[in-house]
Amino acid sequence: MTPLKGACIIGQSGGPTAVINASALGCIEAALASEHITKVYAAENGIKGVLDDRLYIMDLEDSCELSLLKYTPSSAFGTCRYKLKDFIVDDTDYKRILNLFRKYDIRYFFYNGGNDSMDTCSKISSYLNQNNYECRIIGIPKTVDNDLLGTDHCPGYGSAAKFVATSCMEIYKDAIVYGTGSITILEFMGRNAGWLTASSTLATYKGFGPDLIYLPEIPFDLANFIADVSSIYEKKGDVLVAVSEGIKDKSSTYISAYFSDLTKHTDAFGHSRMGGLAAGLASFVSTKIDTKVRGIEFGLTQRCAAHIASETDIEEAYTIGRAALAAALGGATDQLVGFERIPGTKYQCRIKMFDLIDVATAEKKIPREWINAAGNGLLPAFIDYALPLIQGETKMPKEDGLPRFANLKKIMTWEI
Amino acid sequence: MTPLKGACIIGQSGGPTAVINASALGCIEAALASEHITKVYAAENGIKGVLDDRLYIMDLEDSCELSLLKYTPSSAFGTCRYKLKDFIVDDTDYKRILNLFRKYDIRYFFYNGGNDSMDTCSKISSYLNQNNYECRIIGIPKTVDNDLLGTDHCPGYGSAAKFVATSCMEIYKDAIVYGTGSITILEFMGRNAGWLTASSTLATYKGFGPDLIYLPEIPFDLANFIADVSSIYEKKGDVLVAVSEGIKDKSSTYISAYFSDLTKHTDAFGHSRMGGLAAGLASFVSTKIDTKVRGIEFGLTQRCAAHIASETDIEEAYTIGRAALAAALGGATDQLVGFERIPGTKYQCRIKMFDLIDVATAEKKIPREWINAAGNGLLPAFIDYALPLIQGETKMPKEDGLPRFANLKKIMTWEI
Repeated sequence: MTPLKGACIIGQSGGPTAVINASALGCIEAALASEHITKVYAAENGIKGVLDDRLYIMDLEDSCELSLLKYTPSSAFGTCRYKLKDFIVDDTDYKRILNLFRKYDIRYFFYNGGNDSMDTCSKISSYLNQNNYECRIIGIPKTVDNDLLGTDHCPGYGSAAKFVATSCMEIYKDAIVYGTGSITILEFMGRNAGWLTASSTLATYKGFGPDLIYLPEIPFDLANFIADVSSIYEKKGDVLVAVSEGIKDKSSTYISAYFSDLTKHTDAFGHSRMGGLAAGLASFVSTKIDTKVRGIEFGLTQRCAAHIASETDIEEAYTIGRAALAAALGGATDQLVGFERIPGTKYQCRIKMFDLIDVATAEKKIPREWINAAGNGLLPAFIDYALPLIQGETKMPKEDGLPRFANLKKIMTWEI
Repeated sequence: MTPLKGACIIGQSGGPTAVINASALGCIEAALASEHITKVYAAENGIKGVLDDRLYIMDLEDSCELSLLKYTPSSAFGTCRYKLKDFIVDDTDYKRILNLFRKYDIRYFFYNGGNDSMDTCSKISSYLNQNNYECRIIGIPKTVDNDLLGTDHCPGYGSAAKFVATSCMEIYKDAIVYGTGSITILEFMGRNAGWLTASSTLATYKGFGPDLIYLPEIPFDLANFIADVSSIYEKKGDVLVAVSEGIKDKSSTYISAYFSDLTKHTDAFGHSRMGGLAAGLASFVSTKIDTKVRGIEFGLTQRCAAHIASETDIEEAYTIGRAALAAALGGATDQLVGFERIPGTKYQCRIKMFDLIDVATAEKKIPREWINAAGNGLLPAFIDYALPLIQGETKMPKEDGLPRFANLKKIMTWEI
């Protein structure tokens, strides 16, 4: 097949990760080097930048500065959570996209995101097809949630998992030092899939991690939870618990909603408050067990901790960005570029293409057989899966003892 | 002076840090190598281990494993928050201490902690003196709060500051990516002194940090706070704010108490809840400014993040541990071993001894002249002070991509 000649756009979508920019870099570098790509654009705030004609010209960036994207967390070009309507219902957005693609002769579109972003790609692809506009559309996976179907794992997950496991080990050491008993409840991201929370078990594997882990995959029962915690507390005196923000009871009610009665109450200023799950569970436990109980909610840090990113994750994110471009040049379209794990004792992955339609909007859960019978811990199969993904240390350059992030010019098309 | 011959104890006290074990290691290694020290003990849970005759024998540890203490966070031997009564009032504890010191022929006592620990040292020293028991007592500074008088800075602070500044840079990148406006409020440790919160300004210095910083040193006013935040929000669209947990209004009421009206309310289980400062302020701001507002409380991680410890801090912590032993062998007692900064453009510190009585219980605040006129940011003098303390990266050994902590035998005296 003769490679298609034209310009390309790369867009970033959904929540940031520590390595989403590494994927962008891989794709941009490969595009800049290709004789078939006439111009390389990055969309500001993903598809919103495409709709609003806000494109940064990558050809004008300094290549050294650009290369620092490999170690710069979060979405360098901005992101969005914008859902395209079905074009049968309303094709306004699609017309704008087609107009912009024509204006800049866009023949390659790369979208780096999670399941919703793959849905966006799939819809745009169908519309362009119907309008006989030739354009290769490739999804690049990205999510700390690790919940994309098809691909063995998602870039971003390994780094977030490494931060979670490392922090758990450090907090374990910290939480037990008074020798007077303690229960510490750590809350991690994950509404429907527990991959990130489960990675805390890697700390346990090294001897300093949670005693109990609760995932959205398993219905959560407060009475069982208290029994679990009490039993460990009586045995050890200190208990470390990891919970996923999305744990639900058997009626599919979020456990965090149990504590949201708080929102009916107001503080001194008359404002209502949302209670966090870790704080709510800690408060509940402290009425049942007389000891020091703490709830710690891991905030944004868990998804953007580039300083402790996994080298494996960084390199894979970069590689998959390059692979996306190579696949598109080779004729692929309407596909997600992902990983397939090669069986064997040594960890190895190969690039594999998946049809977008098969991965859009669905979520991959942790297999039941990787979770223990009691539903409060992970089995060795999960460790075999996750441990290779956190290997190796980042080579993030430092300046004054702090990260040296990429400092891009970000020149818009209308600025030249 | 002929060096005193006898055994030594090292104890750890107060909240853990990333490098308190590096100080312990420096002291223990130097003690094991000294011909004047007959036996080296570490007290379990600080002074409580001394009272309860729970001493670990360091002479029986493997030296390679011991050396990993340099990169193992938190208090390896356990810590405590135990306040000795005045011995005029009640000398029960002191008698037990003297008995134990006689039993093991303890002639050197090293206590690694903050201001309260220095008070403990000072009291024990006076009592032993009055009872004509010769023992050299040396305090070793340690606190992420950095609030000990005398010494230029405290081991533990540089590493915590490096974590805070790095995390702020990463969160800054993450918080602004949607381009739809946001206000993010980060809460750091520090009840009375704002050193740790102030270190977030190092992120601002690198271009990715808080726009506003509020410290316990400056009376906090909610109306001014809202005006500050609104002004930045109108200018930039995204606002990052750092607050110290201990900010107070001009009547010295903790701002966190404004939101503790929550404790009067109960959740679905009838349990009361404590509200965090960041969450409370976020809730307040969201009623005044119509945008996405988040509050993030940095938990235990800020004091135990050994994975991003400052090499300068690690090496200084180790050095000061060795210096404590050298000073005691040289005849010093009743003193704190600290740092004095040598004036000049290049950062350099020398060891300096301070009388315990002068540092016990007092707290060092950030000088007013290092804070801007509006009281919501730091001036370059603070950066000159803090930046050298976060330089260099940890050489923490890894195993399976995760920290390899020291695994000590911890053999008690009565176990052999």
